[in-house]
Amino acid sequence: MSLNSIFQYFVPKDKKVFFPLFEQAAANVVAMSTVLVEAVNSLDANAREEMFKQIDKLENKGDELTHQIYLELGKNFITPFDREDIHSLATAIDDVADYIQGSANRMSLYAIEEYTEPIRKLSELILQGSVELEKAVRELKDLKNVRNIADSCIRINSIENQADYVFDRAVADLFLYEKDALRLIKYKEILAALETATDMSEDAANVMESILVKNA
Amino acid sequence: MSLNSIFQYFVPKDKKVFFPLFEQAAANVVAMSTVLVEAVNSLDANAREEMFKQIDKLENKGDELTHQIYLELGKNFITPFDREDIHSLATAIDDVADYIQGSANRMSLYAIEEYTEPIRKLSELILQGSVELEKAVRELKDLKNVRNIADSCIRINSIENQADYVFDRAVADLFLYEKDALRLIKYKEILAALETATDMSEDAANVMESILVKNA
Amino acid sequence: MSLNSIFQYFVPKDKKVFFPLFEQAAANVVAMSTVLVEAVNSLDANAREEMFKQIDKLENKGDELTHQIYLELGKNFITPFDREDIHSLATAIDDVADYIQGSANRMSLYAIEEYTEPIRKLSELILQGSVELEKAVRELKDLKNVRNIADSCIRINSIENQADYVFDRAVADLFLYEKDALRLIKYKEILAALETATDMSEDAANVMESILVKNA
Repeated sequence: MSLNSIFQYFVPKDKKVFFPLFEQAAANVVAMSTVLVEAVNSLDANAREEMFKQIDKLENKGDELTHQIYLELGKNFITPFDREDIHSLATAIDDVADYIQGSANRMSLYAIEEYTEPIRKLSELILQGSVELEKAVRELKDLKNVRNIADSCIRINSIENQADYVFDRAVADLFLYEKDALRLIKYKEILAALETATDMSEDAANVMESILVKNA
Repeated sequence: MSLNSIFQYFVPKDKKVFFPLFEQAAANVVAMSTVLVEAVNSLDANAREEMFKQIDKLENKGDELTHQIYLELGKNFITPFDREDIHSLATAIDDVADYIQGSANRMSLYAIEEYTEPIRKLSELILQGSVELEKAVRELKDLKNVRNIADSCIRINSIENQADYVFDRAVADLFLYEKDALRLIKYKEILAALETATDMSEDAANVMESILVKNA
Repeated sequence: MSLNSIFQYFVPKDKKVFFPLFEQAAANVVAMSTVLVEAVNSLDANAREEMFKQIDKLENKGDELTHQIYLELGKNFITPFDREDIHSLATAIDDVADYIQGSANRMSLYAIEEYTEPIRKLSELILQGSVELEKAVRELKDLKNVRNIADSCIRINSIENQADYVFDRAVADLFLYEKDALRLIKYKEILAALETATDMSEDAANVMESILVKNA
């Protein structure tokens, strides 16, 4: 129990500032994942490159939102949660965005031609995780539906487990069937970046779980 | 100094709930490491596969223990340490288990035939680290033997340094002597997963050191 | 707002102990980066090996400083910031040192012959980040120039972004032009270790930002 928890019974929380920013940051991650899924399923290489550029732009927007949250943290005396949790959650959501952009960036830079089943499946899992992340973030403003947040966090964990499994299986298959070492390394790097995006969602879920724990 | 530290002089700590769970989780990691060492030293491929399956089962058991700790955190108002430290320690122990299982999983998936000296040495170091982890966790319930906990943490750090050294040396040797790039990548991945398991023990040690620091 | 923040108005802070240790640790990282830049620009292989050994020695010195900070944390009741932030910052600075030494170690172990442009550029970025890190650490003792600390943190973030870009571009070029898979893997590993050193500076900057946020 922190002083913060005592204070929160006496002072109006500054919800009007932080929650809309978090909701925008989470919605932005959903937008990025949606474009990612579209890109890896596209058969048109030029259209795909355009989508990768769009992901870059969205990532810049996400950076600005993160920065605004940090700025508000410096200004606001009373925060709805511990300041460090607000900082950690903003950082974790930013990390998800970074790895989505990093994955897209690698696919573009490495001039990947074949968008394989595991690449499509991992992108789909990133989208599912982002949707759960956004749902959970929306519930943070009133902790009335703690159960819903906890459920989303559990689903994010399960999605990360599935991504682990897809990644491990895909890499094992590369070792079995891909005889060109350079291609193997390329694909392994891309799969790893995609899988790490789901790890970052799990980090965000862990921060939210720890917010729930402190405010239980 | 947190409010928690003041409160702990007035309220009975809920030791009966958390410490047995932590001790079971740490003992489970020791069990997993013991099977891992046995597996990488086994000459019988079928027996080895059985051991890898046993590691999977133990990892599931570990997941349940971690989940129970999280659930108790949600229920218990007074915790023996800061709630976030309990959460972090549970997560760190779970991470050690994850990487042991991940290493075993890769060895099985990549159909490794030769269990080399560095693989055996890293597995042995994982076991040593897990034993120190369990010792330290057992001392957490009464902070009477702070020295013992600190010593175990120092040993875990030293084990991690040794693992780093074995890993670096082994990868350098792969570059010198392994001419098959695919085999080289496979072995490097497995060595990296094993080495990361010792990093995760170090994370757990860091959490315990930070618990000592706060409760000094 | 923590109890610590209330206490700090009443009790003299133990600045005399922690700040000189942090300043020495940060200065040590600058010394390591300076030798690193010199080594990767040297044309004399023997001189380079001597510099790598010097980096090893400096890293040992850094370990001792980190350990001293931990010891002081155990002794001092009143700390200038939250104990966990002091612990995290010491760990983050130590991590920068570890990755600089790890990069040097790999270059030596893998018997790299050609010190490429991206290797030199990343080393230069590590040095720039270390210089900003030291500047920010020196300002921590009186939080009078909060703006300066925040600016250094922003520059560290921007340096990390540049390092990301150099790394991504360099790896893409390896895939395009390096036909020897073993050489490609070697260089990719070294570039990754260098790039991670800048990630660790970013972690240190994040801890400092979170200290600013708490003490705003």
